Amino acid sequence: MKNRFFDPDPAQRKAAQTLYQSIADLPLVCPHGHVDPRLFADPDFTFGSPVELLIIPDHYIFRMLYSQGIPLKKLGIPPIGGGATEIDHRQIWQLFAEHFYLFRGTPSGNWFTEALSSVFGIDKKLTGSTAQTIYDQINDQLASPAFRPRALFEQFKIETLCTTDAATDSLEHHQAIRESDWNGRILPTFRPDAIINLEHPQWRRQIDALSAVSGIACVSYGRYIHAIEDRRAFFKKMGAAAADHSALTPFTTILSAQEAETIFQRALRGKASAADARRFTGHMLVEMARMSVEDGLVMQMHVGSYRNHNVQLYGRFGADMGADIPTRTEFTRNLAPLVQKYGNDGRFSLILFTLDETTYARELAPLAGHYPAVKLGPPWWFHDSPNGMRRYFDQVMETAGLYNTVGFNDDTRAFLSIPSRHDMWRRASANWLAGLLLRGIVDKEDAEAMAYEMAYGLARRAYKLE
Amino acid sequence: MKNRFFDPDPAQRKAAQTLYQSIADLPLVCPHGHVDPRLFADPDFTFGSPVELLIIPDHYIFRMLYSQGIPLKKLGIPPIGGGATEIDHRQIWQLFAEHFYLFRGTPSGNWFTEALSSVFGIDKKLTGSTAQTIYDQINDQLASPAFRPRALFEQFKIETLCTTDAATDSLEHHQAIRESDWNGRILPTFRPDAIINLEHPQWRRQIDALSAVSGIACVSYGRYIHAIEDRRAFFKKMGAAAADHSALTPFTTILSAQEAETIFQRALRGKASAADARRFTGHMLVEMARMSVEDGLVMQMHVGSYRNHNVQLYGRFGADMGADIPTRTEFTRNLAPLVQKYGNDGRFSLILFTLDETTYARELAPLAGHYPAVKLGPPWWFHDSPNGMRRYFDQVMETAGLYNTVGFNDDTRAFLSIPSRHDMWRRASANWLAGLLLRGIVDKEDAEAMAYEMAYGLARRAYKLE
Amino acid sequence: MKNRFFDPDPAQRKAAQTLYQSIADLPLVCPHGHVDPRLFADPDFTFGSPVELLIIPDHYIFRMLYSQGIPLKKLGIPPIGGGATEIDHRQIWQLFAEHFYLFRGTPSGNWFTEALSSVFGIDKKLTGSTAQTIYDQINDQLASPAFRPRALFEQFKIETLCTTDAATDSLEHHQAIRESDWNGRILPTFRPDAIINLEHPQWRRQIDALSAVSGIACVSYGRYIHAIEDRRAFFKKMGAAAADHSALTPFTTILSAQEAETIFQRALRGKASAADARRFTGHMLVEMARMSVEDGLVMQMHVGSYRNHNVQLYGRFGADMGADIPTRTEFTRNLAPLVQKYGNDGRFSLILFTLDETTYARELAPLAGHYPAVKLGPPWWFHDSPNGMRRYFDQVMETAGLYNTVGFNDDTRAFLSIPSRHDMWRRASANWLAGLLLRGIVDKEDAEAMAYEMAYGLARRAYKLE
Repeated sequence: MKNRFFDPDPAQRKAAQTLYQSIADLPLVCPHGHVDPRLFADPDFTFGSPVELLIIPDHYIFRMLYSQGIPLKKLGIPPIGGGATEIDHRQIWQLFAEHFYLFRGTPSGNWFTEALSSVFGIDKKLTGSTAQTIYDQINDQLASPAFRPRALFEQFKIETLCTTDAATDSLEHHQAIRESDWNGRILPTFRPDAIINLEHPQWRRQIDALSAVSGIACVSYGRYIHAIEDRRAFFKKMGAAAADHSALTPFTTILSAQEAETIFQRALRGKASAADARRFTGHMLVEMARMSVEDGLVMQMHVGSYRNHNVQLYGRFGADMGADIPTRTEFTRNLAPLVQKYGNDGRFSLILFTLDETTYARELAPLAGHYPAVKLGPPWWFHDSPNGMRRYFDQVMETAGLYNTVGFNDDTRAFLSIPSRHDMWRRASANWLAGLLLRGIVDKEDAEAMAYEMAYGLARRAYKLE
Repeated sequence: MKNRFFDPDPAQRKAAQTLYQSIADLPLVCPHGHVDPRLFADPDFTFGSPVELLIIPDHYIFRMLYSQGIPLKKLGIPPIGGGATEIDHRQIWQLFAEHFYLFRGTPSGNWFTEALSSVFGIDKKLTGSTAQTIYDQINDQLASPAFRPRALFEQFKIETLCTTDAATDSLEHHQAIRESDWNGRILPTFRPDAIINLEHPQWRRQIDALSAVSGIACVSYGRYIHAIEDRRAFFKKMGAAAADHSALTPFTTILSAQEAETIFQRALRGKASAADARRFTGHMLVEMARMSVEDGLVMQMHVGSYRNHNVQLYGRFGADMGADIPTRTEFTRNLAPLVQKYGNDGRFSLILFTLDETTYARELAPLAGHYPAVKLGPPWWFHDSPNGMRRYFDQVMETAGLYNTVGFNDDTRAFLSIPSRHDMWRRASANWLAGLLLRGIVDKEDAEAMAYEMAYGLARRAYKLE
Repeated sequence: MKNRFFDPDPAQRKAAQTLYQSIADLPLVCPHGHVDPRLFADPDFTFGSPVELLIIPDHYIFRMLYSQGIPLKKLGIPPIGGGATEIDHRQIWQLFAEHFYLFRGTPSGNWFTEALSSVFGIDKKLTGSTAQTIYDQINDQLASPAFRPRALFEQFKIETLCTTDAATDSLEHHQAIRESDWNGRILPTFRPDAIINLEHPQWRRQIDALSAVSGIACVSYGRYIHAIEDRRAFFKKMGAAAADHSALTPFTTILSAQEAETIFQRALRGKASAADARRFTGHMLVEMARMSVEDGLVMQMHVGSYRNHNVQLYGRFGADMGADIPTRTEFTRNLAPLVQKYGNDGRFSLILFTLDETTYARELAPLAGHYPAVKLGPPWWFHDSPNGMRRYFDQVMETAGLYNTVGFNDDTRAFLSIPSRHDMWRRASANWLAGLLLRGIVDKEDAEAMAYEMAYGLARRAYKLE
C-alpha cells in the first residue's frame, strides 16, 4: 500500500509521501545486525527450504506460535542433542500459514508479508488455503541464482553490512569475502561479552580461546587486557568500525589495578562471586571505553534483556528461543563512572540502546543532549515497530536533538527482512517529519534534510562508515 | 454523539464507524467485576435513591469531589461506627451536580453522562440548575419494574456476569439465583486474598472461617491446602470459571513443604514477620497456579495497588474511599518462579493486570508473547479510559499479539455503568483498528475479525465462558 | 504559522484555532520561574549583546552545541576563576548560527525562533549566512528604550511574575521594585534548599547567613526552625505566595524532636552522614508542609534531577551547565508521611513537579485526584515542549481531573522566551481540548471554560494570585 504506516489525514499523507519518495531509494546502511557472514563467503550459498529460511531461524516468528500452544518440535526447531522434531517442511509451513492470523497488527507479520511481496513478488494473503501454492512459489525462486545472498545484497542496495562476531572469532568468513572478487562491504563487529562477563557460561573456555587466538597467555589481568587490545587491533584491521556490548544492566565502575587482578585470578580458579562478576564487568565496560578512545572503535551498549527466562525451554532447546524478557533499566547513575571519565572526549563515541522506553525521555535523551560522546541508538528489538518508532521520535527527539541519534539499525539475522525493516523506518521517519512540518515545527528544507539524515547520513557518520 | 471517541479524520471515522456497527450489538461478556450477586438473588431488588445508586457506592465519583475539598460526610458516606452524615439525598445530589464540572474530560464523567442517557433517557447536562429535575427523572424511573436488576441485565444483553467472592463465602446468593426460575448467567469467582496473604487484617479470622466452611480444620499447612482445594471445588461446582488474586506485588517463590509449614504455624500463633508474609504469599501464588493447572480455573492477578494510602480517611471511613494509589511494579523477575514452573503447561491460563503501564511493552507483552499460559488483561482501573485503552493498544499489541490478550473486563461494582464501559471499549477498539486499516497494517477482513474478538470472542475463550 | 502546534486534521485545526483565539490575549500569569529581579529593580537595565542575552545564560541552548563537540569556551561561557573564553560576540553568534540546525524539531529551537519573530520582528531563518544581519537587527533594537525589561514586561502583558529566591536573600531588588513608581507585580518565592539539605555544599555557610539575616542564632534545632519561620514571614510580607523545594527524591519522614536536634548538632559540626542528611531533609519537608499549613504559602516540590552529572564540567564551569540528568522517582511511598499528616488539610496546598513521566498516570494523578491538598504542576523542564504537554494531558487529566492541575509555569530565566512559552502551552491546550470536543468527550461550553482555566484561571487560583 502506497501510504503504508502514514497517518490518515490527507495533508499529512501527501507530505509524508513526498518526504518518503526523497529517501526511499537511498542505499541501505546496516551498522548493527546478526546476519551470518557465511552467506557471503560462499558465492553459491543457498537458503534451503522456505521453512529453513523463514521460520526455523526466526524467533520473532516461532515465539508467537509457541505462545499460542504450538510446540516448537512441530515447527522443526531442533532440541539440544537431537531428538524428534518435525521434518516435513510442507507440513510445518501449512501449520504456520493456518496460524498466520496470530500476527495481525504485529511488525513481524508486516515484515513477513512485505518480504513475500517485495522479494518474492507474492501478494496473495498467507492462509491455510494458500499455504502450499505460496510454498511452491518461494521454493522455486530460492533455487534461482538471483536468490544467492550476494545477488540479493546487491539487489537490496546494501552499502555496508556489519555483522556481530565473538572477540575470539577467527573472522575466517570475513577473510574469505575480502579475498574474493566480490566487492560487497561486509564488516565484522567486536563483541567481547563472553570474555568480559565473568558469569557468562563460556567465560573460562573463552579465556583459553582468547589466549590461543591472540597468542598471549591470559594468566594475569594485565595480559588479559593486552590480549583484548590485540583482538581489537585484529578486528580493526579486518574493517571493524565498532564494538558491541550486551549486558543485563549498564552498571559501570572503576576498580584499582589490584582489585581487578584479584577478581580476575579468582575467576580463573572458578571462585568469582556474583558481586565480583558485577564489579568486574562494570569495570571492563569502562576499560572498553578507554580502548575505544584509543583505537576509535565506536562503542555500542545493548542492555536490559533477561536472557532465557524460560528455563524449561532453555534446557531443551538452548538460547534464542523467544524467551528473552526485558527488565527495568537505570542509566543516570549506572553510566556515571564511564561518562564522567570519557564522555567529554571527542575521540569517543558511545551508542546506547534500551528495552526500557521509560529511559528515553528521562535519562537517555538528556544524556545524549549533553555529553559529546553519547548518542542514542534507534528503537531496539520489541520496539523496532511502527508504534515503537513513533514513541521514540516522540520521547527522544525534542531533548536529545536529531543529531545526537544515529539513524536506523535493522539488528536482524533474517537477511531477507532487511529491506522491509529499513522501509518501515523510512516511512515512519517521513510520517513523523510530515507531522512536524504540518505543525509548523520545522520547514520544508529542514524536513528534507532530516529525512536524508535519518535514512542514510546519521548512520554513516555515527559508525564512521563514510 | 455518533462518532464519540473516534479520531477526527473523516476516513478514520468512517472506517471506525463501520467496524463499530459490526460489534455494537454483540452481547456483553463480563468475566471480572464486583457487582453484588444479591441484586439478582432477589427478583424485587430496588436500587434506592439516585444518590444511593450513583454516588455513595462509587468511589470513582466521590473521590473527585473529595479531592476538591468536599467532605465525605456531605456526600452521605457513612463513617465507621456510625456518626453524622448528610441524609438529605436531594441536597447531596445538588452539591454533586454543582460540582459535576470537575469531571470534565474524565472517564467517570463520561460513564455517568452515558448512563443517564442510555439507561434513563436523560440527555440534559447535569448542572446546579438541572439537578432537581434530573433527580426526579431518575427517581421516578427507579421505581418502575423495568429497573429491577434482572430486567436491566436482560436489557443490557449481558451474556455472562462474573462476580468476585471471598474464598470463605457461602455463595448463598448464587445458590438462590441458580434455584430461581431466572436464567441470567451469574457466576462466582474465587478470591482467596484474605486466606493466603498473612498480612491481611482478617487472616486469622478467615482461617477459622475456612475451617468452618470447608469442614477441614486448618491446623497444619497440609490441611490448609486441602481446605483451599475443597473451596475451589465448591466454587467450580457453583459455576466459577476463574480465581482472582490481588497483591501489592507479583512476587512469587517456592518454599519447601517444611518452610511452608513452619511459617504457617507461626502465622497461626500471630508471630509471622513481614518477611514470612512476603515469602508465604509468594509461595501460595505458585500453589494457586498448581491448583489452576489441576482444576482448570483461570488464574487472574491484579497487582500493584497501595491500598488505603490515606490513613486518616481509612480510620474514619474504612476501605475503598478512593485512596488506593498505584506503585511501580516488576514482573520479569517476580513472576519467574511461577511461570518457569507452570508457564509452559497447556492446561494453565494466567491473566495479568497492571496499574504500572511501563510494564506493558517492557515486561508484560514479551511475557504474553512467549509463555503459552500467560495472557494480558485489559487496561485496569485508572487506565480503563479512552487514553488508557489507546496506550494499551499502542504498547501491548505489536509484541504480545492480539490473541494473547483477553478482550474487555468492566471490573465495576456500578451495575448501571456496564453498558457504557463496554461501549467505550468497543468504540476505542474500532477506532484503533480503523487506524491499522488506514495505515495498511491490517486489511478489512482482519480488522473485522479482530473487532469481533475484542468485543466478544477473546473474553469468552480466555475465561472459558463459551 | 497560524496553526502552529495544531494537529493537521482540518476540523481539529478549526476547533483549536477558535479555542486558541479565545485565550491568546489573556494576561500572562508566571507563578514559578527564575528571572532575575534585578532586571526590574533598575529602570534602565539593559541586556547587553545578543550573545549575553540569548546564549551565555541559556543552558538549554549551549548544551546542544556542547553535545556536538563545541567547547563551552568557544561560546563565551566563563570558566570558574576566570581563564580564556571567547570574547568576540559576533564570532560566537556566527558559530551558533552555523549550528542552529541542531535545534531542528526541538522546543529550544522553537522558543528561539519565536522570540526572534515576536519580540524582534525577525522572520528570517538563522543560518551561517544570515547570522551577522540578524545580529545587527537584534543589537540595534536592544539599545532602544522599548527593550528595557519593564517595558517588555508590559508589552508581554505579564500580570504577575514570581522569582525564586534563597531563604537568606535580602530581597533588596524586590524592595527596590516596591519602592519605585513602577507597578509591575514581581513577587519573591521562598527557596530554602540550601538551608534544609544538609548535603548542600553551602549548607554550613547558609546557616550562618540565616542566623545573620534573621537575627536568630541557629545554635539549636529549635532556633533554626524559628529562624526559618521568621524568614517565611519576611517573604510573605514582601508578597511571596509560595515556597519552592528542589530535591533529588520526594522522600519524607517525621523525626522526633530529639533526633532532629541530634542530627542538626552533628551537621553543625560537619559530622552528618549521608543517612542523616536524607532523614533530616525528609523531615524538613514535612516541617515545611506544617509551616505552609500555618502561613498559607503554597508548597512546591521539584524533584528528581541528578544535578551536575558531568563532574569534569562542573569542576571547570560550575553548576547549570546543561548537565542535570533526571532519575527515576517514586512518590506513592516517599510522600506518604507528608500527605498522610497534612494532605487532608484544607489550608494546605502542595504542588508536585516531576521529571519522571512514568509517575504521571501511576502515582501523581491518583494522588492529586484524591488528596484535597495535592495538585500537579505542569510538565517540567525537558517536558515543557509540545510532545511533553501532549503526554501530560494524555496521562494526567483523565484521573486527576483538570481542576487538580495548576495551569502553566514558564520556569525560565530567559525573560524574552516567556511569551513564546506561554503561547506554546496555550496552543497545546487548545489543540488538546479541540480533540476532546471532536471526540464528543466535552462540549463546546466545557472546552471554552477549560481553555480559560488552563491559560489563566488555574494558575491564579492555585498560587493565590487573584
